[in-house]
Amino acid sequence: MKKWKRSARLVDMTRRLLRDPHRLIPLTHFAERYQAAKSSISEDLGIIQEVFHSGGSGELETVSGAAGGVRFLPRVDRPAAEELVDTLCRQLSDPGRILPGGYLYLSDLLGNTAMVREIGRVFASVFCDSRAEVVVTVETKGIPLAYATADHLGLPVAIVRRDSRITEGSVVTINTVSGSSKRLGSLSLSRRSLNEGVRVLIIDDFMKAGGTVRGMIDLMNEFHAQVSGVGVMTDTLLEERLVENYVSLTTVAEVDVKKREIQVVPGNLLHQGGWIHGQSTD
Amino acid sequence: MKKWKRSARLVDMTRRLLRDPHRLIPLTHFAERYQAAKSSISEDLGIIQEVFHSGGSGELETVSGAAGGVRFLPRVDRPAAEELVDTLCRQLSDPGRILPGGYLYLSDLLGNTAMVREIGRVFASVFCDSRAEVVVTVETKGIPLAYATADHLGLPVAIVRRDSRITEGSVVTINTVSGSSKRLGSLSLSRRSLNEGVRVLIIDDFMKAGGTVRGMIDLMNEFHAQVSGVGVMTDTLLEERLVENYVSLTTVAEVDVKKREIQVVPGNLLHQGGWIHGQSTD
Repeated sequence: MKKWKRSARLVDMTRRLLRDPHRLIPLTHFAERYQAAKSSISEDLGIIQEVFHSGGSGELETVSGAAGGVRFLPRVDRPAAEELVDTLCRQLSDPGRILPGGYLYLSDLLGNTAMVREIGRVFASVFCDSRAEVVVTVETKGIPLAYATADHLGLPVAIVRRDSRITEGSVVTINTVSGSSKRLGSLSLSRRSLNEGVRVLIIDDFMKAGGTVRGMIDLMNEFHAQVSGVGVMTDTLLEERLVENYVSLTTVAEVDVKKREIQVVPGNLLHQGGWIHGQSTD
Repeated sequence: MKKWKRSARLVDMTRRLLRDPHRLIPLTHFAERYQAAKSSISEDLGIIQEVFHSGGSGELETVSGAAGGVRFLPRVDRPAAEELVDTLCRQLSDPGRILPGGYLYLSDLLGNTAMVREIGRVFASVFCDSRAEVVVTVETKGIPLAYATADHLGLPVAIVRRDSRITEGSVVTINTVSGSSKRLGSLSLSRRSLNEGVRVLIIDDFMKAGGTVRGMIDLMNEFHAQVSGVGVMTDTLLEERLVENYVSLTTVAEVDVKKREIQVVPGNLLHQGGWIHGQSTD
């Protein structure tokens, strides 16, 4: 096996760390791969940590001991979170989104992979310490956000279906009542997609009164799963809500169908703590 | 603005290039960001290209001229593609997947974010030169694969719905007949999610006789869109198929419900050309 120069090592380690967020990589893996001393590897990691940290893209966490190693934790700094929230507010308040009945067209936003990835990165940062083991969402529009978040947390995803499908095998189904329109519905999750007792993070695109999220929480109870966080891209201003603790990136304050105006303000995301202190956010 | 050392520059450039596949970044961006001469930036890019290439993770493409720059193209080498196909074949042939009616349970595989990302990387490599402008899929299980592919190609995603939703605004709907079970269905796509005349790449998880993919191709015709590629995670052995040109990673050759046996073989992926020649595939 060839010996690597430091420059090549830095590129390869950066690639390797970014590829598997939250996955612990033993230092011996790097030492063997590059035929280098552990002290050199540690120096390299110091350089990478410095660049990641000051660039606002995350932290390297070093775990010492026999089962130790290093892992990359995607974290954002406050300016990056503010920038995302700002962009979302601006894009969401485009009156062209207003559909009959005051619904909002969101598919373009959720089809923008760069935007979706950035939302996932911010959620992963906020829920970095949630100790969630699975990200759960409901079809259809929540799926991209759930995968982007799970990707940055190194977790699997389980998708709740609105109607049970033969391809899901045996499922657990609960009936739901939409909090805003009082419509009946059902939510199903394949028995196999969740082990009993796991900790889950719920991610969805839009929350009105919270009937769907409430339904998901109830469904999680059927699996004896513990909900360790709830994140939504946008919620609405409502007095009564079926869910208490959740993180929203934005809040739709008003949709005036006649005047064709939408008012969107930052959600409660920026009231959360735990931002890292980077210096730039390219 | 501080001056960057080469080591820090290499880490930051690697991060930046990996983050936005297929996006052209002007060399002046790097030169200004790092306060470095273009010749130094070019040297750095040479080191990064060498590591990416020999590690089988892709290529840097340099475009010269005033509108020039550099972009990262995720590409896999043949061993990496073979390894993915091999893993998929092994996992898919687990008899525990057999559901009533000979259907296969796939949600665990599609919930595995690392696996999904790798499938997306391989599709992005095969369709690297397809010049597709949008990745199109159908809800629900194709969505993660479509996003993973689009992520690696730097493209947006449009999701075809099986029933039209109010939140999609005005839609184009076509009726479909499943090629295998002759069931009727419909496929809808929001008018706004696709510009007329664009080139699209269709990605889905499972293709039997191809009725759904055929339906998507017909739907694309309604948008005057051009289908520049079709990729599925797995297909089945059938004499008659409604779709001719497509890439499959695996083929389900036989499902014996009584004996509880599944036989899965490599699809036509490895007959495609265009693999890069890396030396290792960590």
